[in-house]
Amino acid sequence: MSLESDLSSQLNRARGAARALALASSEQKNQALAAAKNSLSRSADEIIAANQSDVAQARDAGLNSALIDRLTLNSARIAAIARGIEEVIVLPDPVGETMAQWTRPNGLEIVQTRVPIGLIAIIYEARPNVTIDAGVLCLKAGNAVILRGGREALETNRLLARLMAEALRKSALEPDCVAFIGNPDREVIQILKRRPDLVDLIIPRGGKSLKQALAGSEVPVLPHFDGICHTYVDRAADLKMAEEICFNAKCSRPSVCNAMETMLVHADVAEKFLPAIAARMAAARVELRGDDRVRAIIPRVRPASDADWDTEYLELILAIKVVGSIDEAINFISRHGSGLADAIVTADTQAAARFEREVDSATVYVNASTRFTDGFEFGFGAETGISTNRLHARGPMGLRELTTYKYIIHGNGQIRVIGTS
Amino acid sequence: MSLESDLSSQLNRARGAARALALASSEQKNQALAAAKNSLSRSADEIIAANQSDVAQARDAGLNSALIDRLTLNSARIAAIARGIEEVIVLPDPVGETMAQWTRPNGLEIVQTRVPIGLIAIIYEARPNVTIDAGVLCLKAGNAVILRGGREALETNRLLARLMAEALRKSALEPDCVAFIGNPDREVIQILKRRPDLVDLIIPRGGKSLKQALAGSEVPVLPHFDGICHTYVDRAADLKMAEEICFNAKCSRPSVCNAMETMLVHADVAEKFLPAIAARMAAARVELRGDDRVRAIIPRVRPASDADWDTEYLELILAIKVVGSIDEAINFISRHGSGLADAIVTADTQAAARFEREVDSATVYVNASTRFTDGFEFGFGAETGISTNRLHARGPMGLRELTTYKYIIHGNGQIRVIGTS
Repeated sequence: MSLESDLSSQLNRARGAARALALASSEQKNQALAAAKNSLSRSADEIIAANQSDVAQARDAGLNSALIDRLTLNSARIAAIARGIEEVIVLPDPVGETMAQWTRPNGLEIVQTRVPIGLIAIIYEARPNVTIDAGVLCLKAGNAVILRGGREALETNRLLARLMAEALRKSALEPDCVAFIGNPDREVIQILKRRPDLVDLIIPRGGKSLKQALAGSEVPVLPHFDGICHTYVDRAADLKMAEEICFNAKCSRPSVCNAMETMLVHADVAEKFLPAIAARMAAARVELRGDDRVRAIIPRVRPASDADWDTEYLELILAIKVVGSIDEAINFISRHGSGLADAIVTADTQAAARFEREVDSATVYVNASTRFTDGFEFGFGAETGISTNRLHARGPMGLRELTTYKYIIHGNGQIRVIGTS
Repeated sequence: MSLESDLSSQLNRARGAARALALASSEQKNQALAAAKNSLSRSADEIIAANQSDVAQARDAGLNSALIDRLTLNSARIAAIARGIEEVIVLPDPVGETMAQWTRPNGLEIVQTRVPIGLIAIIYEARPNVTIDAGVLCLKAGNAVILRGGREALETNRLLARLMAEALRKSALEPDCVAFIGNPDREVIQILKRRPDLVDLIIPRGGKSLKQALAGSEVPVLPHFDGICHTYVDRAADLKMAEEICFNAKCSRPSVCNAMETMLVHADVAEKFLPAIAARMAAARVELRGDDRVRAIIPRVRPASDADWDTEYLELILAIKVVGSIDEAINFISRHGSGLADAIVTADTQAAARFEREVDSATVYVNASTRFTDGFEFGFGAETGISTNRLHARGPMGLRELTTYKYIIHGNGQIRVIGTS
């Protein structure tokens, strides 16, 4: 059988499962999630073994450290995934939630109610936790899901998907609600994107090549792409707080999209702030690249090129620029940011108010690390990802972001006056 | 100058205007809308004259009656558009609205707040009222808008857009917030869809050829396409009510997307119901096409082909089918409906509950006409359109559907624990 017909029959089964799943009760869904969680916890050793095999292959293939980090599962990360499932179980079911209701002058009663999206395809790269996180959130929100992980995590993902399917088989839900595509070829993406009749949404989590592969998709795409995040240290910043926040934003996990890539520092505090943060970054082996004003203060910083301001490093590299005003900082972020997560550190409430109003990013922070842009940290339980889209969902995605809605309208014979639009 | 560079500079001006407009106050926006309303009312005669010229040309070009109807503006329709602006002025400004707020255990305060989408391109065909309706709603929601109407309504649209721009010029907002593209060539659409750097969203309102023209768009598209709407007359229906609802759904304005195209009748009431509704439809010159069971009751009905069940007539044609159960009705709608508007007429609350739960359409009616699927009838003021998408916005679009959101997060130095995802 060809890849196309193989995939088509898998999509058709998932599509059928989606219709039943959309009408499943919260209890049925939670039971399935609990079974998945137990299965995951019981199989931790097996998962780590499969993952170690993936990691070893990835090292042989020469993957960079950021990707190896994303790929790695250890018992702490497996426990975090399991806790994520528990959090999702206790979260309220978004399906059936009343979003708004009102009565029209003619007596029509309109209720806007949440319903599942349908069948969602998740395309991701190295991080195998996505297999569970995305699967679990999609299920709870009543969506069937097609998981298509990266080549690097194939063994880990295959096992995780099998554990999910086994858990579903023990519950009232159909195993076809979670489908895993074991074929890592790019051709799979080309087939998926041409099936709007079967797939309601594609959520891609990856880099530029995934973006290119999805160009011209006939299925709606909710992208999870670039994160070029800024922290602006205002002249009214508590500099010790700024140091902690900037260090955390850059160093706590440089390989993820909410890590800081560019630090902007107000000229009035640059001479005091830069030496301290630079020393700390250097001790953590962060390569610093700065503009002339930065290098006038710390000569050992490498000069930043124009390309640096538009680069998502995902590594221990930081671009630094001195700015003359908050306006310059806001304009710089508007031009170079990716609109994902940007922060100001300031004790000046007026500066904070301007920054949060004028910076048009999914998450805008005052006096906190950009690293909190994450479904787990937002309290959404596990996360499907962080949308870099402006439409439907923006920023961390939880259960509600995996739903759509319909209007249910009750009347008693209302008809519309003839001739109006 | 080429079309491409011409359009590019127009888009760039609108983009610049969008950033300022996003920060405009409700008062500034309402003043601009009031000026537009006054300008429209004062210029009714001039608008009708321009429109008559468009209509005359359209008749010469042999446009069908549905399109001529959509194209026509008379004083009643102009007054309705003006009333729509008034309704939009009194509606609360969605921008800045708090959608949700919560505090995390670590003290981070998260506020989800509505913000404008940015620059929206509306591509529409014959209906010139869209020029005002869409322009007004986009403005109130803080979005700049590019209007690209159809060739048929060019004179009317050009005048309406000029009136809007003049009104903006008298207010505090920049006239570039509303841009009109006078070039009706399809090439314009090909240029628009390749500019995700300038345009945040394309809202197309039209038929199949517009859909094809937008295939592969790099700019997100919120489609407003097919409406294949059903009314199911249940065995427990009040048949007099069913007759009024079905007649209204088909005949009050057959050229619009929320008009009924297919009527499903439960077998138990078909013999009683069909003769009455068929006589009334025939008197209104509706062509009826039915399956064998319909024709066994009313032999003069033409036989329906398979294609009829999947056709959006937008004319005085109605497909009719007798079904044996509510399950058959729901399955039929699931297979042949476009997911826009479907109704059940029944006095049986259990049947109503099943229908509203299991029919997955943007608007699901119990005992009312599908013709209410409309922003004006929903109380949204004027309407930008009726989304046939499952994502971002579904069904009638009002102000909120023209916004996105961002999260504003206040902390006092929070950093994320090192090593977690």
